Amino acid sequence: MKAHIITIGDEILIGQIVDTNSAYISKALNEIGISVYQISSVQDERDHILESFAFAKANSDIIIITGGLGPTKDDITKHTFCEFFNDELVLSQEVLDHVTHIFKAYVKRPLLEANKTQALVPSKATILTNRFGTAPGMWMEQDGKVFISMPGVPHEMKGLMEGSVLPKLQEQFELPYILHKTLLTYGMGESALAQRIETFEDELPATIKLAYLPSLGRVRLRLSTTGTHKEEVDATMQIQLEKLKPLIEDVFVGFEEKGPLEVIIGNELVARSKTLAIAESCTGGSIVQRFTANPGASGYLAGSTVTYATRSKTEVLGVDEALIETHSVVSAQVAEAMAKQVRDLYDTDYAIATTGNAGPTKGDSEAPVGTVYIGIATREGVKAYHFMMGTHRERVIGKAVNKALELLHEEILKN
Amino acid sequence: MKAHIITIGDEILIGQIVDTNSAYISKALNEIGISVYQISSVQDERDHILESFAFAKANSDIIIITGGLGPTKDDITKHTFCEFFNDELVLSQEVLDHVTHIFKAYVKRPLLEANKTQALVPSKATILTNRFGTAPGMWMEQDGKVFISMPGVPHEMKGLMEGSVLPKLQEQFELPYILHKTLLTYGMGESALAQRIETFEDELPATIKLAYLPSLGRVRLRLSTTGTHKEEVDATMQIQLEKLKPLIEDVFVGFEEKGPLEVIIGNELVARSKTLAIAESCTGGSIVQRFTANPGASGYLAGSTVTYATRSKTEVLGVDEALIETHSVVSAQVAEAMAKQVRDLYDTDYAIATTGNAGPTKGDSEAPVGTVYIGIATREGVKAYHFMMGTHRERVIGKAVNKALELLHEEILKN
Repeated sequence: MKAHIITIGDEILIGQIVDTNSAYISKALNEIGISVYQISSVQDERDHILESFAFAKANSDIIIITGGLGPTKDDITKHTFCEFFNDELVLSQEVLDHVTHIFKAYVKRPLLEANKTQALVPSKATILTNRFGTAPGMWMEQDGKVFISMPGVPHEMKGLMEGSVLPKLQEQFELPYILHKTLLTYGMGESALAQRIETFEDELPATIKLAYLPSLGRVRLRLSTTGTHKEEVDATMQIQLEKLKPLIEDVFVGFEEKGPLEVIIGNELVARSKTLAIAESCTGGSIVQRFTANPGASGYLAGSTVTYATRSKTEVLGVDEALIETHSVVSAQVAEAMAKQVRDLYDTDYAIATTGNAGPTKGDSEAPVGTVYIGIATREGVKAYHFMMGTHRERVIGKAVNKALELLHEEILKN
Repeated sequence: MKAHIITIGDEILIGQIVDTNSAYISKALNEIGISVYQISSVQDERDHILESFAFAKANSDIIIITGGLGPTKDDITKHTFCEFFNDELVLSQEVLDHVTHIFKAYVKRPLLEANKTQALVPSKATILTNRFGTAPGMWMEQDGKVFISMPGVPHEMKGLMEGSVLPKLQEQFELPYILHKTLLTYGMGESALAQRIETFEDELPATIKLAYLPSLGRVRLRLSTTGTHKEEVDATMQIQLEKLKPLIEDVFVGFEEKGPLEVIIGNELVARSKTLAIAESCTGGSIVQRFTANPGASGYLAGSTVTYATRSKTEVLGVDEALIETHSVVSAQVAEAMAKQVRDLYDTDYAIATTGNAGPTKGDSEAPVGTVYIGIATREGVKAYHFMMGTHRERVIGKAVNKALELLHEEILKN
């Protein structure tokens, strides 16, 4: 079973928004055994939409469409969808009741004419209830192909996928089992890693595909395979993982399927009943934000102090002013002091601290752009590490966050 | 001139990464007058890549390709690119010298065989130097169409776009002028906004397109137009903006082209020589991270205290314990106290504070999931606002961040 995802909206093609829906849909389809052949983003334009429907129908079994279902005049997907199937729009009392209910319960405003048109649906379509919004999902079948249209608002689309689309696809089709295992490695470049596991790669069975995904100081290694019997697929994969893991032991930190490194760290801290505090200068809140984006962070995270201005390092964190004057604000000594002070302040088991210069210009320090110091404090002591992370602001911050997580993870595993 | 963007890589089609390159490329092309007809993401698979090249060639003038140029075996774009043009790979001494230099200066490891293959390029292609990596860009022309292949690593691709691709396209083609103006509005729903400006929308000249982009408590209104003379296009747009702005005065906060709201706020604070501190509970560092993601934040931002655990609100921020006991940690009183305390702590002109329950489960408070209080403190006083922001964790956080920025912006404009 092959799927084609079509995202509709000028905002994608002028680069005003990043299309995150396709990644979510691709992942969700893969998990139930449907592989995605292609993703196409097209304009809010009748001819183009019709052309993309025809193209997708020719090369895929399932066509998933998002976007262009809003109540305003620039949204034309529903009419074009209807036209493609030579269908006509009819009023759905079920949808109208739902829209009326949403306005009464949540919007607390009278229904506008534009909102009522959301209850017009193609007569031949099966309606999928949108629990989080007013535009319904639509399921249409033709010549053995399935077309599914959903709104582009991410949480509405996700609600429809989880509540209707995925269960209905699983019910209707016999699907294979697709398995991806992604090994997170930190601290070794892509080519060096490839050279180290060359023999392993050459000996991989043809049914298993290996990919390298390098990004900001880490490389993800993905093994993918597929089959009809879950047990067999799992066993085939396990054999290869057992061969691969010893080769990369020193750089391997965990499987991405268990969540990103911050989630792995969170689970390790909870399991050990340990707590964490953070002091951030150059990373500006990006580390704490990575932890708090996940539910359950309150189980181990006391808090973070983002001391962006030099003065706040002394006045809020209590770093010794003389230390900053002697060694400069971007130094191993200040990174150590920040880690130590924030651990004391929040009274935690671990603390990480960053100080550096992410650029584009030098700040309150003579340290060159890209200089980053990371401090790690425990109840036993404190140490700092020095890095040069390039001159690209966004990447300096991203690499510093990844490196801080990696160092913290190593520290936790020592105990 | 129409462009087709093709992003190559299984990681996109299994949903492992979000394709952010296409949005960047679309925006950059739009700015020089090239509109993007379609974005297609395809697998690392020979037949599929060849098919997508042929399809794009049939409907576009410029085909921009990213991904699949790495040194490892799963990267096949270069060979397939070569095959499409019936070309052969030859060694480029220029690229080999560049790769050798990068390894000597930055990687500080001997060159591996895999890295040397990066110097193999199609004989008919013009080579575009990749300042930030080892895989070169390639420019190929055929039947009046231009194909450009770049690596998928975002900062390498951006370096190539800015350094080579955009200037070369501008040099080679007479391009029109495309103008987008996006008005940021906060606090009014999409349908209500559409109803309010209905007459304006109906009277818009056919050359101007209006789009609504709702997201997390705000709606962006985008006006787009195009023409050959910049002055005429600017004037036509200006007339419509003058008609539209008075209609939405109460919800309009600025133009997105001037940057997101946090950048607008930063500029306002700098212009007024004012400073900002932040205390975050439920937003967990997302507010400070929005500010520090932009260069220049150190000009107005003192810092932020992320007090995730209840205890850190009293011990780190100095919020009165009795206040929390009486009113609960999620309350207007605590939001006010947090804002006041953090403003004192960092000694700033403004402070914002958030406390709430983003879910999925209740924390140290009986407040239902979705409850958010936002406190704003100035040198004159402090106040708090109460919101219910739904039950979806990520959205509660996103809406709370947007609302806090909106309230702060209003407060700043009062002076």
